[in-house]
Amino acid sequence: MIEDKNQQHTPLSDLGEFGLIDHLTKNFKINHTSTIKGIGDDAAVLDFKKNKIVVTTDLLVEGVHFDLSYMPLKHLGYKAVVVNISDVCAMNAEATHVTISMAVSNRFPLEALEALYVGIETAASIYNIDVIGGDTTSSTKGLLISITAIGTVQGSNEVYRSGAKPNDLLVVSGDLGGAYMGLQVLEREKEVYKVNPNNQPDLEPYTYIIERQLKPEARRDVVKLLNDLGVKPTSMIDISDGLSSEIIHICKQSQVGCDLYEEKIPLDPAVISTCEEFNIDSTTVALNGGEDYELLFTISQEDFTKIKGNPNLTVIGFIKEKEAGLHLVTRAGSRIPIKAQGWKNFND
Amino acid sequence: MIEDKNQQHTPLSDLGEFGLIDHLTKNFKINHTSTIKGIGDDAAVLDFKKNKIVVTTDLLVEGVHFDLSYMPLKHLGYKAVVVNISDVCAMNAEATHVTISMAVSNRFPLEALEALYVGIETAASIYNIDVIGGDTTSSTKGLLISITAIGTVQGSNEVYRSGAKPNDLLVVSGDLGGAYMGLQVLEREKEVYKVNPNNQPDLEPYTYIIERQLKPEARRDVVKLLNDLGVKPTSMIDISDGLSSEIIHICKQSQVGCDLYEEKIPLDPAVISTCEEFNIDSTTVALNGGEDYELLFTISQEDFTKIKGNPNLTVIGFIKEKEAGLHLVTRAGSRIPIKAQGWKNFND
Repeated sequence: MIEDKNQQHTPLSDLGEFGLIDHLTKNFKINHTSTIKGIGDDAAVLDFKKNKIVVTTDLLVEGVHFDLSYMPLKHLGYKAVVVNISDVCAMNAEATHVTISMAVSNRFPLEALEALYVGIETAASIYNIDVIGGDTTSSTKGLLISITAIGTVQGSNEVYRSGAKPNDLLVVSGDLGGAYMGLQVLEREKEVYKVNPNNQPDLEPYTYIIERQLKPEARRDVVKLLNDLGVKPTSMIDISDGLSSEIIHICKQSQVGCDLYEEKIPLDPAVISTCEEFNIDSTTVALNGGEDYELLFTISQEDFTKIKGNPNLTVIGFIKEKEAGLHLVTRAGSRIPIKAQGWKNFND
Repeated sequence: MIEDKNQQHTPLSDLGEFGLIDHLTKNFKINHTSTIKGIGDDAAVLDFKKNKIVVTTDLLVEGVHFDLSYMPLKHLGYKAVVVNISDVCAMNAEATHVTISMAVSNRFPLEALEALYVGIETAASIYNIDVIGGDTTSSTKGLLISITAIGTVQGSNEVYRSGAKPNDLLVVSGDLGGAYMGLQVLEREKEVYKVNPNNQPDLEPYTYIIERQLKPEARRDVVKLLNDLGVKPTSMIDISDGLSSEIIHICKQSQVGCDLYEEKIPLDPAVISTCEEFNIDSTTVALNGGEDYELLFTISQEDFTKIKGNPNLTVIGFIKEKEAGLHLVTRAGSRIPIKAQGWKNFND
């Protein structure tokens, strides 16, 4: 489906470990004054002065988290960095550094890793991140990427999952369900391709949702926007597993309940039309789809006027006392308990 | 070879991702005041005040870096943490935090991961490290562990690979070649076991070298010793790939040459006797064996009296001008150029 136009196939063994790392990382620039030493020693050395730091890590496994038959390596590199930046944003912090480790089987030529690193470099450049280290090794099967991201937070600006209070407003950035529906389209086209490799699919109507899946962005702009508006969320999380899972995290750790209003959940028209085409309920997609990397947060009622009318932000519910439980209030007015979808990786 | 006495086999899918992480990490204690928030949010939050930090990361892949047929999971967990602490030590820093990510295939029951975490917890406890995050996911094949370690360094105490000067002394801690010869013994016993599973091997003569392979230690004590002695190395690296590879790193990054004296290389009697038994040259093993996790460093000549006679430290050579090149001076007095062994992972 993704045509391999790359004619060159240089075996990784031609370079050796150190030659490979040197080759892949030679274009990385150091931008932060906090980076005293980046790649090239036993460890990187960083100086954050008096600021606190946040640290987060993610592991992406081929065949579990991504499928290279429709995920170009360049996009994969970009997305791998972005999902970690998203976690840093969810702490109300500014991402500054990443380390990137990968295990690759010998089915990958040098040119494949170069494409992956172009994506990593693009994300590092756009989000102003210094790549300060990593490890590259062989795997017995497939590709695996492990990224650790570091960010800074000034003063006491960090925001946890645990600070939501009854009567707070539940707010989400952007719109939901796009990444999941993009994946459905890509999976369908993969099946079509298997049957007829010469079929030229018209993916134009799905541009937005496919981009949400293949090239998500971290909502660094929302962190800045809230800061500019003088709003410090009482709790925050990024939406990687789906709205319902993230609401449960916030409510569990804050020891509160909530009402989520179905009619308020922001959906792009392309998500709605694709859900109709696939005959899937769009609310279910928004609740359980995941990978949108929007920010879900709670704010005091008194901050409502500051965010009111902002097209990037939608109030989707209210925080309640713990005893009230967690409910979706449907368009018809009925109240349905919000449940976790659980984790299916180990069942696959 | 390692008998599985564990009768319980709980599938990982019984717990789900969050249940699994909660279960495995529930015994971890937070000891450092710098840990504001550990596991349980989008990211950990750390406060190092005015101190600089060092960051290092390592990826260990089953079938490439370890073989579970003779590496008990408890030891693997311990070693995975220790090798990262060793990198922090090599910066003359104090390791304080780690994140631990792993990908596991469904062939591993919960009890296997519990054993792995006992090893991780033991290392964290002995080395006084806070485990502050990680990611646990499924893999399509085998076990993979990715660890990122963070440490602190006060003032300008960090030591790079690049500071060696002509006339400096080249010093190594402990002894070399043990981990490699331990691996040779374990590989031999694995072959014996394949032929005759009832054979009870007498591994007692190899206790030291097998422990060097299965349960290496990071030389945190040497970092403290040097500090107590008032010696700041001009350059430092830990020996993970073998003495010759590490000497090349120091000389290349410091733009110097060196003479290494074969007769000075510290070898344990068990290494010498096992080399004789396997008919391998012990100098070759010390030069290229790797995984000893000793510290290799350079000091000014004026610091020699401070370390002289210390049983933990051995002067093995001298730093020279770059133009002099890198040489091993043999017992017979001949000079042999020191060459890298290269990286064989991708050729396997």
